[in-house]
Amino acid sequence: MTAPNRATLWGRTLVDELAKSGVTGAVVSPGSRSTPLTVALAEHDGVETFSVLDERSAAFFALGRGRRTGEPTAVVCTSGTAAANYHPAVIEASQSRVPLLVLTADRPAELTDSGANQTVDQEKLYGDAVRWYKTLPEPAPEARRLRSLRVAVDRAVAKTTGSDPGPVHLNFPVAKPLEPTDKPGDVPDSLVDEAPLAVEGRDGPFVRTTTGRGEPDDAAMADVAAALESADRGLVVVGPLNPGVCDPAAVGELLDATGFPLLADPLSGLRYGPLAADRPVFGGYDSYLDAPGWPDPEVVVRIGASPTSKVLRRYLREADARQVVVDPAGDWPEAEFTATDCVEADPGTVAAALAERIDDRPPAAGDGSNTPDARWRRRFERAEATHWDLVDEAADETLFEGAILSEVIAGAPDPATVFVSNSMPVRDCDRFGRPRTADLTVLGNRGASGIDGITSTALGAGSATDDPLVVVTGDLAYYHDTNGLLSVARCGVDATIVLINNDGGGIFHVLPIEAFDPPFTEQFVTPHGLDFEHSADLYDLAFRRATDLDDFAAAYRESLDSDGTQVIEVRTDGEASHRRRERLHERVRERVAEDR
Amino acid sequence: MTAPNRATLWGRTLVDELAKSGVTGAVVSPGSRSTPLTVALAEHDGVETFSVLDERSAAFFALGRGRRTGEPTAVVCTSGTAAANYHPAVIEASQSRVPLLVLTADRPAELTDSGANQTVDQEKLYGDAVRWYKTLPEPAPEARRLRSLRVAVDRAVAKTTGSDPGPVHLNFPVAKPLEPTDKPGDVPDSLVDEAPLAVEGRDGPFVRTTTGRGEPDDAAMADVAAALESADRGLVVVGPLNPGVCDPAAVGELLDATGFPLLADPLSGLRYGPLAADRPVFGGYDSYLDAPGWPDPEVVVRIGASPTSKVLRRYLREADARQVVVDPAGDWPEAEFTATDCVEADPGTVAAALAERIDDRPPAAGDGSNTPDARWRRRFERAEATHWDLVDEAADETLFEGAILSEVIAGAPDPATVFVSNSMPVRDCDRFGRPRTADLTVLGNRGASGIDGITSTALGAGSATDDPLVVVTGDLAYYHDTNGLLSVARCGVDATIVLINNDGGGIFHVLPIEAFDPPFTEQFVTPHGLDFEHSADLYDLAFRRATDLDDFAAAYRESLDSDGTQVIEVRTDGEASHRRRERLHERVRERVAEDR
Repeated sequence: MTAPNRATLWGRTLVDELAKSGVTGAVVSPGSRSTPLTVALAEHDGVETFSVLDERSAAFFALGRGRRTGEPTAVVCTSGTAAANYHPAVIEASQSRVPLLVLTADRPAELTDSGANQTVDQEKLYGDAVRWYKTLPEPAPEARRLRSLRVAVDRAVAKTTGSDPGPVHLNFPVAKPLEPTDKPGDVPDSLVDEAPLAVEGRDGPFVRTTTGRGEPDDAAMADVAAALESADRGLVVVGPLNPGVCDPAAVGELLDATGFPLLADPLSGLRYGPLAADRPVFGGYDSYLDAPGWPDPEVVVRIGASPTSKVLRRYLREADARQVVVDPAGDWPEAEFTATDCVEADPGTVAAALAERIDDRPPAAGDGSNTPDARWRRRFERAEATHWDLVDEAADETLFEGAILSEVIAGAPDPATVFVSNSMPVRDCDRFGRPRTADLTVLGNRGASGIDGITSTALGAGSATDDPLVVVTGDLAYYHDTNGLLSVARCGVDATIVLINNDGGGIFHVLPIEAFDPPFTEQFVTPHGLDFEHSADLYDLAFRRATDLDDFAAAYRESLDSDGTQVIEVRTDGEASHRRRERLHERVRERVAEDR
Repeated sequence: MTAPNRATLWGRTLVDELAKSGVTGAVVSPGSRSTPLTVALAEHDGVETFSVLDERSAAFFALGRGRRTGEPTAVVCTSGTAAANYHPAVIEASQSRVPLLVLTADRPAELTDSGANQTVDQEKLYGDAVRWYKTLPEPAPEARRLRSLRVAVDRAVAKTTGSDPGPVHLNFPVAKPLEPTDKPGDVPDSLVDEAPLAVEGRDGPFVRTTTGRGEPDDAAMADVAAALESADRGLVVVGPLNPGVCDPAAVGELLDATGFPLLADPLSGLRYGPLAADRPVFGGYDSYLDAPGWPDPEVVVRIGASPTSKVLRRYLREADARQVVVDPAGDWPEAEFTATDCVEADPGTVAAALAERIDDRPPAAGDGSNTPDARWRRRFERAEATHWDLVDEAADETLFEGAILSEVIAGAPDPATVFVSNSMPVRDCDRFGRPRTADLTVLGNRGASGIDGITSTALGAGSATDDPLVVVTGDLAYYHDTNGLLSVARCGVDATIVLINNDGGGIFHVLPIEAFDPPFTEQFVTPHGLDFEHSADLYDLAFRRATDLDDFAAAYRESLDSDGTQVIEVRTDGEASHRRRERLHERVRERVAEDR
């Protein structure tokens, strides 16, 4: 590798090592100080470069790509507040354990805190929200520095995907010239001969990091397995989980061995897919776990983050049960404070280990039998049937938000990536998104549950796969990240964007503040009156406003069959939708209560 | 003061104290956790509440209001990534010393780091970018807690406007109920009787803070005054300064006493206004300080932040001169590292103190005399005349970016607030915005020089005054903050928005990377091809595209004479504009060089 000056050499070395360590994508925002890296990325064929103008959207786009793939995407910006715009996505990456490699250009030390332009304190900018922070050494044509640069890149990439995946921040001060201008003597010709390893690197990564999977403790497994085996009422609860974190087959083994129902969050990766074919995979529990007389579990195996369903969380909170939380990083993601055990180990390995131990003993329960555990499961099956029947009945012509989510999930192609926004869409997906065997990767930003980068995260996820991409977003989330729509054209990602527009914060109807108006309408619902067709025009996207549920279903199918990106707006009444959710919930509870 | 529950009492107490400590405005984004504060703000007549949906824009709006008034505006958001969206504006507030009071709602301690929804680590979220951080005590009906709350608010407000003004972050954890629901016994009836001071506060602020103005050291003043007096070639250079920080009359006294030219940054608050009537207030220096043979100064008094003009900064860097930097917080905002003295004191007081000492001695120079100092000033006067003559000559029909800024400043009403974006507009304002006696408050985000919140900052500034508001922005800055345009309707601010659209990063033509294409066009200029008329439609703003300079001038006048908000788009050729700037600069330098 040769270079006209040290900054160029440094940039090329960094990108060479990025590629060798397995990074395949980088999201770059235009800026001057980051020029050495931008130029090197543009030159390198092994790293796909996405240009995103707004840094807030850029970081979310990279987050989405990492969320879909489980591999870190680099995100590169210039110095100054640009880097601060990454902060929301960095927090989301941290809390939802998504690999993200943040590379922020900085002024060299002599210009920091000097009053120089566009120079801010970027050291540890994201506080504790990153897994690792390092100020990279300034470019210099020295073998040790170049080796340290390669090692830092490898280590950063490894940290993003380690036992506790998440964001890493590398801050890189660099002095002018930033461009690949010839500066004779700046990089001695002898460097390559003297330090080929530093300059050229190795064939693969400079340092190969292997992260072991956490093996569970034997005694603990035996103890938990015994508890599962002796329980009449057991549950497996899986909350939001990133793709690839938990082997579905292992969970299947656990279900087969125990006969327990699986309550699968829509973001768990288990509600949709092969498990749902012949296992008790349930998704309607938000409607019936609080039905009068519904029995408590005795033992619960919990995997993944805190479930989306508040009814489920309360149910677990009130249960006097043994609750085993399995978490690969040992973080106890369990805000009800009812867990009795935390198993720090790989969830799939734990599930398989438990299944294996139980398999060695007599089978828990046959399907036709009248043992307590069989009755327990059949009760879930009947309640599920009641819930989904009533969901279907509730779907009339009107544009009820729940019916939209029901249709979105039922009509999604196989395979597909479906991204659901926070606030109401993810909750409606939870209640109305019926389990399917189709290969649906349903994703959301559920770490910090913000509505600030939904569109960009979704498009980033879409950029990493050939699956059709469906995005379900509310009007406030759509508004926050309209800038993200520029990535449709600039990054070549297509999507079907379902925009549920209730002109303000529909979620607030769920909260007690609804009873206090003012300030309810002005400060909470915040009707904005925006006609989003203009936003579609701005980004040259097709736009269609669905007039009723059939029209929505037709528009949805049509969009999925089309190239390009379509925004399908569904104007709903947030308050009316809330009442219908309540009514449905009430009806399911009543019917289930009658079925004791 | 009574309240149905402790959270409501707490919110009302906080807002009562905010108002008593002089805060007149709060920017609120909708959210649940912040409900106690939102409700209390909505109830209180003394604090004007602005509702801004996107938290990034909200913080910039509050920043703009503080920038215009010198008083802190509160900005209130819910927990989670909402707070992280404030980070860019917090950094800008810190670096440009704008008072800003950040109030972020948080979950109570039992829910942090538990996996609970929308719960992130908000403690010290902005690192060293705030002047003070405090976690407020959780609501409780106790006299000491309520007094501590009042004291914390007063202290926070005082810190935002102290000797080093800037942002303060108060993080407030609060438990449910968040709404003003009746919770009998939660606030004991006896509380008011037992602790009237804590509950009702005092007539004014609970604690009155007075911040003294930094008085300069006598011996230092005598020494500097002597240096000024003995110099043949002296300068006063004023960089960006917030309104009210430096008394223009005091600077006038210094100019009168010394006879020195004043090189006034467009953001200094001194280029426009009464000083320009009969003092040597110069603004064209970017064109001639690097002319061949232009003499160095012997002594320079520098006030304010680092000047916008790179030519001026280089001129100061190369000068073997005594350079006295005056800064109220002693921060040496001086990235050329040529200063010889730093005077930590109030700039106006220093200017007056120096003038007074010099006044006691014989006058420095009469205007008609042929002393070296008179020749020095006349040389500046002639160079200025040359520069502005050539600027006028350069204004033909074509839409040259410099001519737009020239017209914007020349045609701005008296008084007016003019907000110029970073990147090219502020630079063009520097070169083409001729000094005027009109009361123009020209503002920019020059602390960190980001382009992420320009529209919102400008509208926030406009919300604080009855002045007509003019915003000059480039297409990238406009794009970043289109969300900010919602504040036109929701916050009732009108503006004339001049949108200089060169379809990508015009500033990069100024940089050496221009010679390297690829990646220049794709990664730096980043043409987006957006038709911004749709963005104006989305926010229901009038839109007009100027076809030539006369058409622009007409549209500009018409907008200034109209109610409502108009976006005037000027499509320019970034590269051609850059060439014209270079040519103009070259011609001024040549003419000035001939005039030795």
